[in-house]
Amino acid sequence: MPAEELITPQSSLETSDDDEAWVWAQIKAEARRDAESEPALASYLYSTILSHSSLARSLSFHLGNKLCSSTLMSTLLYDLFLNVFSSDDPLRAAVVADLCAARARDPACLSFSQCLLNYKGFLACQAHRVTHKLWTQERWPLALALHARISDVFSVDIHPAAKIGKGILFDHATGVVIGETAVIGNNCSILHHVTLGGTGKAGGDRHPKVGDGVLIGAAATILGNIKIGDGAKVGAGSVVLIEVPPRTTAVGNPARLVGGKDKPSRHEDIPGESMDHTSFISEWSDYII
Amino acid sequence: MPAEELITPQSSLETSDDDEAWVWAQIKAEARRDAESEPALASYLYSTILSHSSLARSLSFHLGNKLCSSTLMSTLLYDLFLNVFSSDDPLRAAVVADLCAARARDPACLSFSQCLLNYKGFLACQAHRVTHKLWTQERWPLALALHARISDVFSVDIHPAAKIGKGILFDHATGVVIGETAVIGNNCSILHHVTLGGTGKAGGDRHPKVGDGVLIGAAATILGNIKIGDGAKVGAGSVVLIEVPPRTTAVGNPARLVGGKDKPSRHEDIPGESMDHTSFISEWSDYII
Amino acid sequence: MPAEELITPQSSLETSDDDEAWVWAQIKAEARRDAESEPALASYLYSTILSHSSLARSLSFHLGNKLCSSTLMSTLLYDLFLNVFSSDDPLRAAVVADLCAARARDPACLSFSQCLLNYKGFLACQAHRVTHKLWTQERWPLALALHARISDVFSVDIHPAAKIGKGILFDHATGVVIGETAVIGNNCSILHHVTLGGTGKAGGDRHPKVGDGVLIGAAATILGNIKIGDGAKVGAGSVVLIEVPPRTTAVGNPARLVGGKDKPSRHEDIPGESMDHTSFISEWSDYII
Amino acid sequence: MPAEELITPQSSLETSDDDEAWVWAQIKAEARRDAESEPALASYLYSTILSHSSLARSLSFHLGNKLCSSTLMSTLLYDLFLNVFSSDDPLRAAVVADLCAARARDPACLSFSQCLLNYKGFLACQAHRVTHKLWTQERWPLALALHARISDVFSVDIHPAAKIGKGILFDHATGVVIGETAVIGNNCSILHHVTLGGTGKAGGDRHPKVGDGVLIGAAATILGNIKIGDGAKVGAGSVVLIEVPPRTTAVGNPARLVGGKDKPSRHEDIPGESMDHTSFISEWSDYII
Amino acid sequence: MPAEELITPQSSLETSDDDEAWVWAQIKAEARRDAESEPALASYLYSTILSHSSLARSLSFHLGNKLCSSTLMSTLLYDLFLNVFSSDDPLRAAVVADLCAARARDPACLSFSQCLLNYKGFLACQAHRVTHKLWTQERWPLALALHARISDVFSVDIHPAAKIGKGILFDHATGVVIGETAVIGNNCSILHHVTLGGTGKAGGDRHPKVGDGVLIGAAATILGNIKIGDGAKVGAGSVVLIEVPPRTTAVGNPARLVGGKDKPSRHEDIPGESMDHTSFISEWSDYII
Amino acid sequence: MPAEELITPQSSLETSDDDEAWVWAQIKAEARRDAESEPALASYLYSTILSHSSLARSLSFHLGNKLCSSTLMSTLLYDLFLNVFSSDDPLRAAVVADLCAARARDPACLSFSQCLLNYKGFLACQAHRVTHKLWTQERWPLALALHARISDVFSVDIHPAAKIGKGILFDHATGVVIGETAVIGNNCSILHHVTLGGTGKAGGDRHPKVGDGVLIGAAATILGNIKIGDGAKVGAGSVVLIEVPPRTTAVGNPARLVGGKDKPSRHEDIPGESMDHTSFISEWSDYII
Repeated sequence: MPAEELITPQSSLETSDDDEAWVWAQIKAEARRDAESEPALASYLYSTILSHSSLARSLSFHLGNKLCSSTLMSTLLYDLFLNVFSSDDPLRAAVVADLCAARARDPACLSFSQCLLNYKGFLACQAHRVTHKLWTQERWPLALALHARISDVFSVDIHPAAKIGKGILFDHATGVVIGETAVIGNNCSILHHVTLGGTGKAGGDRHPKVGDGVLIGAAATILGNIKIGDGAKVGAGSVVLIEVPPRTTAVGNPARLVGGKDKPSRHEDIPGESMDHTSFISEWSDYII
Repeated sequence: MPAEELITPQSSLETSDDDEAWVWAQIKAEARRDAESEPALASYLYSTILSHSSLARSLSFHLGNKLCSSTLMSTLLYDLFLNVFSSDDPLRAAVVADLCAARARDPACLSFSQCLLNYKGFLACQAHRVTHKLWTQERWPLALALHARISDVFSVDIHPAAKIGKGILFDHATGVVIGETAVIGNNCSILHHVTLGGTGKAGGDRHPKVGDGVLIGAAATILGNIKIGDGAKVGAGSVVLIEVPPRTTAVGNPARLVGGKDKPSRHEDIPGESMDHTSFISEWSDYII
Repeated sequence: MPAEELITPQSSLETSDDDEAWVWAQIKAEARRDAESEPALASYLYSTILSHSSLARSLSFHLGNKLCSSTLMSTLLYDLFLNVFSSDDPLRAAVVADLCAARARDPACLSFSQCLLNYKGFLACQAHRVTHKLWTQERWPLALALHARISDVFSVDIHPAAKIGKGILFDHATGVVIGETAVIGNNCSILHHVTLGGTGKAGGDRHPKVGDGVLIGAAATILGNIKIGDGAKVGAGSVVLIEVPPRTTAVGNPARLVGGKDKPSRHEDIPGESMDHTSFISEWSDYII
Repeated sequence: MPAEELITPQSSLETSDDDEAWVWAQIKAEARRDAESEPALASYLYSTILSHSSLARSLSFHLGNKLCSSTLMSTLLYDLFLNVFSSDDPLRAAVVADLCAARARDPACLSFSQCLLNYKGFLACQAHRVTHKLWTQERWPLALALHARISDVFSVDIHPAAKIGKGILFDHATGVVIGETAVIGNNCSILHHVTLGGTGKAGGDRHPKVGDGVLIGAAATILGNIKIGDGAKVGAGSVVLIEVPPRTTAVGNPARLVGGKDKPSRHEDIPGESMDHTSFISEWSDYII
Repeated sequence: MPAEELITPQSSLETSDDDEAWVWAQIKAEARRDAESEPALASYLYSTILSHSSLARSLSFHLGNKLCSSTLMSTLLYDLFLNVFSSDDPLRAAVVADLCAARARDPACLSFSQCLLNYKGFLACQAHRVTHKLWTQERWPLALALHARISDVFSVDIHPAAKIGKGILFDHATGVVIGETAVIGNNCSILHHVTLGGTGKAGGDRHPKVGDGVLIGAAATILGNIKIGDGAKVGAGSVVLIEVPPRTTAVGNPARLVGGKDKPSRHEDIPGESMDHTSFISEWSDYII
Repeated sequence: MPAEELITPQSSLETSDDDEAWVWAQIKAEARRDAESEPALASYLYSTILSHSSLARSLSFHLGNKLCSSTLMSTLLYDLFLNVFSSDDPLRAAVVADLCAARARDPACLSFSQCLLNYKGFLACQAHRVTHKLWTQERWPLALALHARISDVFSVDIHPAAKIGKGILFDHATGVVIGETAVIGNNCSILHHVTLGGTGKAGGDRHPKVGDGVLIGAAATILGNIKIGDGAKVGAGSVVLIEVPPRTTAVGNPARLVGGKDKPSRHEDIPGESMDHTSFISEWSDYII
């Protein structure tokens, strides 16, 4: 993957084995450079990255160590993760797409290895991908035990049944809660404290359906089986109880559509990729006064 | 406890030894079934549930392992928890009522054992019950040390002095903050990121008093020594600085009563049990436009 | 530092070696008293406080144990922290000022040792001070690895490059997110779930600049390179996208200035120190109706 | 137990509850003194001794921590040990008698607490007492799992079925091997590298029977179902394949009786208590030249 | 492998995949039986045996956990062991032969699972087989690091270069030391504290060569590049500096051949399998008097 | 230190700062080479050696990690070791001399780093040097607690009061026991299972005094306050109860002097350095027949 393609991360949806190899080579090169410049970190970088022969092994090792507990041993988790990551090519492509998403969209992300090692949103999401696979295999108790560990360790609570696309950036990620029947499309960016929640104690399909390229600002709460259309944007701190059409912006508590519900303003960019959190402000200000 | 009674969890307030025995038998049966279907999890299920002779022992073991650190040893915590749980019947009844509340109200809760093992809200609440007992015994430093561990491990921060009733569901639970002089009644359901906070640096009685059967939506912030009446509901993302009368709903930032402050609408159900998060929407929409 | 000076913590900005010695003596006396009254906690108190010859050693030990992982060893972190704390007098003065801030402003803070041992906001902030120093030394990978551990362990996510003054109280602290180019002045009080966030994927100076003596209420979200003036106050749950002049209050979603944007009300006290969260309510109520 | 009785440890066979209380009081006093003089050790002394309400609890805690592994958790072992020690008075009397034996016979033993905390021979013997009880209850797999841990951790290998009396000193203890059908009387002293071994692959009664008051020197190997009479002595490095009559000494490889097999010399003292390892030298020298 | 063949363990040298499958099925059945009868041990048995799909995985997991340290992680060792055991059929056949040897020759060995889980001699030997493979691959530093861990954890010190056959029983095993150029044939039984040592500081071939079917008694010391012939026996506590011809017995310090060096007595059985430690006594007694 | 001087390790007694720097540079170079050739070990080598700025730090880290337990934390031990090693130049010179002794005398020792990381005899001896220093400072409880950890972890039991010279090689080391009043000179080599023991329960000066350049073979037992003269040799498996004059050899059980007690043979070399274990055999054979 040539560097310039990083600027068009939607291409990450078609990540191939070559992309994986390229990203893994980048990660090893970055880790080698960092180990040399910072001996205090070299042991950490060798154990997490440089001693491993593949991205799947490195990630399985890292997640196994982060999520293990005194009663759920690291080798068991390592085995489980490695087994899933090794055998599921699309899942591994999603891992690569998520690495590229963080690298491309988060200005604070200096390298792929930083994301692989440090981003709790990235790690929680990849661990979720494994719990989701277990869920589809009807291995519910194991999926739920892992789910609980992810919530304990990363403060990210994604129900194993939730469906999450590729090229996802969970930025900062602390406090994210995503319910059982939620769906998230590809190339979305979701900030910390975001809730995709249900509506009550009845079972069934009760959580939001988020399209492709959506940006959801920090601390937004979206409740119920409603659609957030492709390329939509939800402002930080919004409480969304209504459908949000494609390429429109919902803001406020309760959230309303910028431009009005009848003729909402439509933006041209894909907020999930452009990460433009605040461009609606002037318009909104007009609207709310 | 016959299964159908689960539908009327308010009865959980009168849990008896029989209920505890019945729930514990359920938990063991569930764990046995899961251990058989998922060998990878069997070791975990035996160490946390199946090797123990009582719910009190199982919970003490599980909490001891979750909350221990390199300087607060698991055996010390196990001893402490077991001592409290074994000797305090009402406290144990509250544990059982909380298990029943999760099972009855959370559609994602498939079994009692899932709640016992995996729900950080449940675990944080039971650990809080122990810190509260220590607090009433004026064992402040120990109570506060445990309080800090609960906040570190579960991201749930309940001051040891706060009083919490029975049949409580802390759903998802990450980010819950409950202050020193807060009180929560029975059969309440409280979502994640909820704050029951104080008003400043003066000491004294300064936190909310929440009645029975209250539902507090995700990310709601309630500040000051105000009453949230029995059966009231607080919408997700609300910032509540005013009293909320019984069986009324407060929403918005700042929160206002649905139906208006003079004649707020009254609902018939008990939101803490019905978990109806969003039925006020149509009415609210009318109100806010 | 005589006890009465605690009431005027702004003086904490001029903490001297004497202050450090005085606070450390207090901490040891408190720990000794607690160890005597609570044998179950004595081992913990000796290992974290009473066996150490200085505040720097005690804090380095405590942080090293909290932040270590199976791949980042406690002795490495201990060494790193001790090296920084021992050699950087202003940094150590900030530690002391933060201890005094918690003791003076948080009515639930009963002792310095409680803050030192238990306050995740205090601990995350001191660990951040070390990552910040590493960042200024261009030891980015190590700073970022530590940053990730702080976010995992305390659910407090402060970018190593963010600049933070002295006399800071991060109260409860869970969910705090502070971006790369954010700046926080002296004597501020910041509650849990507060975000000082950026505006998009462009790099550069993109986060809030918070003055001295500011109070930011729980779950407030402040986005973009905007100024929050000295002595300003941001209400709980507010979403702030505009500048907040000195000694004014911003509340609501989107946040507006109390008193109106043209002639905002000015308060006399320093909210970061007085911690008055809710005095604006009556005025606000007037404003919003 | 008055101090002078320590000189006549045979009385330890009649240890009573009073003796246990007296020894436990001594241990706590010693630990308190040491914690004061050595702050670096205070945490250790509080966690192992001073935070416990009884000798049984302290010993259970200490053994649980020493013998636990990543797959055999400390709380499980603590529970198991505490259950046995609490309920079995004679077993606890044997613990006390062993403490007194070390204190009285080993000139390097400065205090009871030193033996309780540091003597691997003492700790291995007490853990063996528990495995032996499990063995008599036909809980073989658990007894054997513990046996293996004792052998790993202390390099002391005593088969759970072996019967061991009271007032035993295993001095240094590394490398001791005691087979399934071995029996050891009261008030014996056994040095490191001693083997009480079998004779082949046939099952049945095949290990040595050691009487009361016997002293077995370092690295002595005693094989087969033979009697080592009351008050006998076996020289260091001896290989014993023959019966050793009461109050006689066997030395050499192969071991012969000092004084000749027909009229062996008889000594007056009780070697297991007097610990006289080498008084036979002159006589032996005569014999072997 | 039918049960009666266990009586002729020399056949273990031709262990096939069928034998491995049969032994592994036995082990699982034993573990299942023990888990049912002893709930306190069930977690341990599931994590070490019942959750694994093969003997190679179970053994790799168990050794990884036993030999890991804070600087050599369990997942790394697990991976390494699994890789070797999975890919090397003869090595795995040796594992099976060793299990059969313990089961057939040690009357205290009640089951295969007891040997797999508990016998430090068995575990040290299998770990050695892996270090030996690494040694032949010239991965010296890794082989030596593992060698050191084996010596720390099991007190069994076998140089990675030493060659060890199949069907070996290291009984009790504590203190065994085997030097770099030592060779051990098939079907040998070696007791604890046995040394196969060198002769000085010169390198080269300097350690004993032990044939097939040899029995070496406890605490025997054999020094130098000398041959211990097939079916020979070395008495407990012997110091052997001379060649021992096939089917003869060496005893004493210094060791001499039973029957005299010119016409040593020859025995008919294979001592490594019959485990007859002491039958030479009468003859020896004659000899030495 | 030029390489050829390694052949004359007696010079190690005059190790200077230059020697230490030279050995440390060798160790780092070896570790760097090994980390490159074996990525699986790189993390281990970085954490134990390559991340440290001095031999004292590396050794303190390694010992701290090996000897820590759940109740004696690694940072405490690290601090303690570093403090002693950093401040005591002669002690550090002894460390260097011991490294050189292993490298020069043990043909299986391929590098200094192998000794530093892997040799339990080396590690136990350096930890003993620290306990001995604590003992001379009358910090008995801490010295004895460490002594017990050394005995648990390495199966090497050296009383803190025992005095040990420089240039010592404890080869294999498992099972070594050295009593309270024992003294060992410089440039000695002592094999595994060696005992320098006492004579009974009376206190006072009761253990062997070993001169310079002595070689003590495996499993030798030396009892009582007797002198083993400079350059003497004790054969493997010997039981020594008599004085051994300088440059003579004692062998057998009981040990006699080679050449006879009146005119013992004198050898020219220094056995502690030449490591010639068996050259006396022919002479001995003559003697004993």
